[in-house]
Amino acid sequence: MGGGSASVGHTRDAYRLGELIAEQEWILLNGGRNSGIMDASAHGARSRGGLTIGILPDANTLRASRHISIPIITGMGSARNCINVLTSDVVVACHGGAGTLSEIALALKSNKAVILLHYEKDPIFENYFRAGRLSYADSPEAVIAEIKAILQRSGGME
Amino acid sequence: MGGGSASVGHTRDAYRLGELIAEQEWILLNGGRNSGIMDASAHGARSRGGLTIGILPDANTLRASRHISIPIITGMGSARNCINVLTSDVVVACHGGAGTLSEIALALKSNKAVILLHYEKDPIFENYFRAGRLSYADSPEAVIAEIKAILQRSGGME
Amino acid sequence: MGGGSASVGHTRDAYRLGELIAEQEWILLNGGRNSGIMDASAHGARSRGGLTIGILPDANTLRASRHISIPIITGMGSARNCINVLTSDVVVACHGGAGTLSEIALALKSNKAVILLHYEKDPIFENYFRAGRLSYADSPEAVIAEIKAILQRSGGME
Amino acid sequence: MGGGSASVGHTRDAYRLGELIAEQEWILLNGGRNSGIMDASAHGARSRGGLTIGILPDANTLRASRHISIPIITGMGSARNCINVLTSDVVVACHGGAGTLSEIALALKSNKAVILLHYEKDPIFENYFRAGRLSYADSPEAVIAEIKAILQRSGGME
Repeated sequence: MGGGSASVGHTRDAYRLGELIAEQEWILLNGGRNSGIMDASAHGARSRGGLTIGILPDANTLRASRHISIPIITGMGSARNCINVLTSDVVVACHGGAGTLSEIALALKSNKAVILLHYEKDPIFENYFRAGRLSYADSPEAVIAEIKAILQRSGGME
Repeated sequence: MGGGSASVGHTRDAYRLGELIAEQEWILLNGGRNSGIMDASAHGARSRGGLTIGILPDANTLRASRHISIPIITGMGSARNCINVLTSDVVVACHGGAGTLSEIALALKSNKAVILLHYEKDPIFENYFRAGRLSYADSPEAVIAEIKAILQRSGGME
Repeated sequence: MGGGSASVGHTRDAYRLGELIAEQEWILLNGGRNSGIMDASAHGARSRGGLTIGILPDANTLRASRHISIPIITGMGSARNCINVLTSDVVVACHGGAGTLSEIALALKSNKAVILLHYEKDPIFENYFRAGRLSYADSPEAVIAEIKAILQRSGGME
Repeated sequence: MGGGSASVGHTRDAYRLGELIAEQEWILLNGGRNSGIMDASAHGARSRGGLTIGILPDANTLRASRHISIPIITGMGSARNCINVLTSDVVVACHGGAGTLSEIALALKSNKAVILLHYEKDPIFENYFRAGRLSYADSPEAVIAEIKAILQRSGGME
């Protein structure tokens, strides 16, 4: 998950994360739009032959990323953030604003493991961090290592 | 689309329709549950190596069909019927009850082409039938022929 | 429930139905937009001091009827039709198109009593009609009488 | 907005906030359940004759607060949080967990004014705080004063 606009550095990291996810043969799911973290991570995953799913807020595909293999069209605006989170085994939040924060929160609410890439430690997440339900990573490679650890603990993909 | 419970004949036709969809290398999308038309059509498509997407009404995969490649978990009950319809290029309704009827109606509302398999001609659909937006088919093979005609008219998949 | 565009006669009946609902001190709930059956029924109810709730498909109130006391803003498009139906004790369908048909279907799916105003008897509803879960009315006054009978059978409002 | 479980102090403040909202003749809208902040704030508002609307996550009213005047039944789980926020003129977050945090985030995402009652200043909200889109209050009375200031700036209720 991540914002619709992002700096060059964050965009590059999202692309790299997409590449690494595809190399693991995991499916990348995001919000599906043709901008920011969503577009970059899908682009990276597709560049390595990965499968990408986009849960679009719109009622059509006009603003869908061309790097999304399977666009799911909800027409539900931000209510689709719940679907993003429920459908994911692990939720990785890249740089983003309030929309991304809502996805982090919804993921915690539905007991999904959450990894924050390039986030400062924040008091609002402290209890979840201590309980091992949210972790911080400082590179795409660290995110992948953390996902592997989470999947191993949970006995594989759900 | 189709009901969660179905007769042997309707189940067999749904399975056959799934096979034919996979043979065309189309993606099959349905409501994703492990019963009735949903389970049978996904089973048929998977038996021929097809990709199957299930838009689940539930907040987990406990009732998902094992023949669904990609379960999308909405937790939104029947509100997910809108997603089924918006995400589809063509909507095929097999035997079903009120839930299936809601999908037919939502598909017409959002200007999707609709094909009814083994339905009697019904006055409530008469205007849509005359306008060429809804058609009747009496076999899985006839459904496939109709989809091809629709896609040709619309210039291919969206 | 009913369409966003309607003839003079259907609009007048929707207005009258709104009046009668308010006189019974029932709450009128509809799709909330400033057109067709929605606007007219809310207008009628408000003219008699009734409370009107509109479940809007939009993410703002730009297209809300000014006769709606309480606009509920969903931003979910036709997925809000599920909310209309789940929140109602009895669903009355006035003249409408595919959107209204989807509400009839969703109401039947969630076991709500359904009354169709000025509809021809249709084979697709035959089983529900025979089971006493759907009825036909030919005037706003007949709708009110039918609602009273339904509420009496069910032991009052839920 | 606020959590489904809450301490005695937070519950008392939520009740008091409900009273004050009703005294202003504003409508109180929350998540509608019979527990925690939701139940207490609705109880307070009703004790002063206020109108209370509950946007329920469930598909029925089994877990609805009896202090809700108008239960809106969504059957959409946490996706209903978007409706809570879109329908509100001002969003007040009382003590809560991840669900409440998602509502704060969704409110910021949709440009609603947000007031946090009894929250520590948090870095994650710093930009919104500086931009005047989020404020902190340390009592129900301070919340009311802040809402008045917001409504005055925006030219009254929408």
